[in-house]
Amino acid sequence: MVSKAVAKYVHALHLKKYRLRHGAFLVEGGKSVRELLSSGILTERLLITAEFNEKIQAELPAGLPVDVVSEAELTHLGTLSTNNTALAIARLPEEKPLLPDPNQLLLALDEVRDPGNVGTLIRLADWYGLAGVVCSDTCADPWAPKTVAATMGSFTRVPVWQRNLPEWLGSLAPELPVYGADLHGDNVHRLTLRPAGVLVMGSESHGLTPPVEACLTQRLHIPGRGQAESLNVAVSAAILLDNFYRNEQ
Amino acid sequence: MVSKAVAKYVHALHLKKYRLRHGAFLVEGGKSVRELLSSGILTERLLITAEFNEKIQAELPAGLPVDVVSEAELTHLGTLSTNNTALAIARLPEEKPLLPDPNQLLLALDEVRDPGNVGTLIRLADWYGLAGVVCSDTCADPWAPKTVAATMGSFTRVPVWQRNLPEWLGSLAPELPVYGADLHGDNVHRLTLRPAGVLVMGSESHGLTPPVEACLTQRLHIPGRGQAESLNVAVSAAILLDNFYRNEQ
Repeated sequence: MVSKAVAKYVHALHLKKYRLRHGAFLVEGGKSVRELLSSGILTERLLITAEFNEKIQAELPAGLPVDVVSEAELTHLGTLSTNNTALAIARLPEEKPLLPDPNQLLLALDEVRDPGNVGTLIRLADWYGLAGVVCSDTCADPWAPKTVAATMGSFTRVPVWQRNLPEWLGSLAPELPVYGADLHGDNVHRLTLRPAGVLVMGSESHGLTPPVEACLTQRLHIPGRGQAESLNVAVSAAILLDNFYRNEQ
Repeated sequence: MVSKAVAKYVHALHLKKYRLRHGAFLVEGGKSVRELLSSGILTERLLITAEFNEKIQAELPAGLPVDVVSEAELTHLGTLSTNNTALAIARLPEEKPLLPDPNQLLLALDEVRDPGNVGTLIRLADWYGLAGVVCSDTCADPWAPKTVAATMGSFTRVPVWQRNLPEWLGSLAPELPVYGADLHGDNVHRLTLRPAGVLVMGSESHGLTPPVEACLTQRLHIPGRGQAESLNVAVSAAILLDNFYRNEQ
């Protein structure tokens, strides 16, 4: 059993407001907790089942507060439908300076509201080794438990920023390319893209917001042959990124 | 208010067992219900809010039983966290004959257990105009409410089959190419792929099962430059399909 204070703290961290207030977030599940412990992100406290505790002993940093709890308690405290391994409270990492490098590609997300999509996009950024992900203020919180889970550990490696997106895009050097997906854009199969600048992905239902769309320097279209009206945002981003990086290897 | 019998029937159709027994499935949300009504799939009954009923009047087929219900009742009956539009009961479409055409590409799914992923993959198959999607018996049910929702209407257009996957793959003509994703496969950026044969995608956590892997004729690798160990299954499929179709336009 954890103390009432710890239980209250964990429950508070389900919500963005308290994550910001406390500067902390939750990491759930054995795989994600292991990634956390081997990363540079500071762990405050670990709640763990007896069985998983045995497995992970050698990886635990000295002095880390650990509560051994039952599966039922762990599941009750967290957001997963079941959790038979671990839940960690971690410090929100400090934001790195956001300085777009004209030789690197950044991914920017405009009102992507589903935490699973935001997490999958952060994982994708990790796969291609992007400079990071800039989320609009209106995106799902990159530190929400569902987002963190969907990154499959990439939350420990990919720099993430939260910004007023039109303002930030407006502040960029005018020569920096800003790409966005658009049904009427240029066919990506006919372009030779270089992974530099910013690729902006829009919301699941409405695409890019008009102020963000106004900042694009090139519109990209993924040619399809069937009848679906659109693609999932992470799926579109994956196809576009593969088109950016296919000329690099 | 719907009758107790209708409420019981709708609740039963949350479960695969009863979908099979009754040969029916649920379609939830205004957009999906509209796609259903304009498709060749038979609708048995429509449960609809008064507001949405006004909007959709012109699209309703004559003789379709319609219950006008409150938002609260609709949400209670269905699986969405809120539903202020519609829920339909539809007949499971009859399976088309599964005859692989050596000039078309089929997508096969091996133990993809998340209904959101299965739905996103069906939507992707629709985008690229694939011949259809063959799901292993161990996949999430393609007719589960969450799968149907994630297809974003593509459930009305993409033929879907459920099969014992190793058995079916074993029965194919030996000259038909069977592709699968593999970290040690051939770099897709260096291949010129033709969209013909079968592309098999494995489970979220374990990749392809050994009996399915044994059926592959070519292994494909998506080159990444970062540190993520793997990609989401729908994201990987999207990148591979784009590599199959980029030489066709």
